[in-house]
Amino acid sequence: MAEITSYQYRIDPQQVDFTLRASAASIINYMLNVAGVDASNKGFGVEAIQGQSFTWVLSRLAVEIYKQPMQHSTIDVATWVNEFNRLSSTRNFRLSDGGELFAAGVSQWCMLNMESRQVVDMSLLRDVYERVMVAEASPIAAPQRLRPTEPTVTMSRPVAYSDIDFNRHVNTLRYIELMFDAFPIDLIEQNNGMRIDINFIAEARYGETLVAGYIAEGNVWQFEIKTDSDKVLCRSKIEFK
Amino acid sequence: MAEITSYQYRIDPQQVDFTLRASAASIINYMLNVAGVDASNKGFGVEAIQGQSFTWVLSRLAVEIYKQPMQHSTIDVATWVNEFNRLSSTRNFRLSDGGELFAAGVSQWCMLNMESRQVVDMSLLRDVYERVMVAEASPIAAPQRLRPTEPTVTMSRPVAYSDIDFNRHVNTLRYIELMFDAFPIDLIEQNNGMRIDINFIAEARYGETLVAGYIAEGNVWQFEIKTDSDKVLCRSKIEFK
Repeated sequence: MAEITSYQYRIDPQQVDFTLRASAASIINYMLNVAGVDASNKGFGVEAIQGQSFTWVLSRLAVEIYKQPMQHSTIDVATWVNEFNRLSSTRNFRLSDGGELFAAGVSQWCMLNMESRQVVDMSLLRDVYERVMVAEASPIAAPQRLRPTEPTVTMSRPVAYSDIDFNRHVNTLRYIELMFDAFPIDLIEQNNGMRIDINFIAEARYGETLVAGYIAEGNVWQFEIKTDSDKVLCRSKIEFK
Repeated sequence: MAEITSYQYRIDPQQVDFTLRASAASIINYMLNVAGVDASNKGFGVEAIQGQSFTWVLSRLAVEIYKQPMQHSTIDVATWVNEFNRLSSTRNFRLSDGGELFAAGVSQWCMLNMESRQVVDMSLLRDVYERVMVAEASPIAAPQRLRPTEPTVTMSRPVAYSDIDFNRHVNTLRYIELMFDAFPIDLIEQNNGMRIDINFIAEARYGETLVAGYIAEGNVWQFEIKTDSDKVLCRSKIEFK
């Protein structure tokens, strides 16, 4: 059986917010980068499956942030895959700063056929998975399934050049930025930790318009981001401690 | 006399656009990061002058981009200061990818007293500058002084959490993203190089609203970004080859 693999990063100026701490979006970015790098290193990255017109799609994510590391810190991102079935594989993350755990995450991925836009049966990758799986439980509860909400719209704008990735779809990180931009800034400045659950449902393309909104009850904020033609793109629930 | 100093970076996924090449904003980001790191290494970084409540402010920038490096390339960013007077210092950049020059830049900086918001006479730093200056001409023409234009407004939105730096001012890179978001996407995809001149005039704060617009004539685009109370924040001229 395989072992947990760790990657080191330095928190650069472009990863911090006005408090000089890594933003939640940056912390999630480290996780998603490491997911890509680790899958590549172990032979099942995007480049290994794109010959068959397959790609990886993030379907759900849960992240708990206990403390946001300061600019110039060197952080350690540990990752491992511990579950896989025909439709989904689970990759986990533990992030630490000077040995102190500051964030943890659980991500669920599916494999998509880019031509048919259908989900691919991952039994195809059984050999790879059996080689890379680690017998270690996920560090936090799995991502929740989030129900529709009736949010108050706070933002509407066309998808822009700086939003899109090589598929011309809006980058995952942008959704997270849009959510955090909706919070009162004092809440972000003074937060004592949070849990984020996100469901990624459909992709927004260049040419479409993003419409974002939320409902808040106490410390719990539920976001829904759609297109202007009511295609639901993603839902999230962010709970502050 | 000092010598040109070089820094190496790897083009990470978050630095590329949908063409998988480093975006113009990312290329400028490498220059600005290196400006900060090199000034720190040589004893005149932000942290060395902030004890006196001084800070560095970028006033003008000229960048020529000949080719945008691909994701995962390792690039070399060479930098040197070659001019300084009471009001402004000039820092230059040459960026290469596998030995091939792909971009060059000239930046002009002033020192600001954060309390009085007045420009500080840089004669204070004469000794430091005499030690670090390099006798090498700037690689491209100095940044132009840009005149007011009467642009057609294309975008208006409040300053958001994800826009601001530790001074709660809009980050320089965001202005560049806003400009590039206004271009037809095919122009970005098929560009054969460009020259960018930017004048930074005032800072937008959290709570203010950004209003951006441009006028285009042939391959030349002139942008003006203001607040909704008509404070001019920055002007730029972007000329595609």
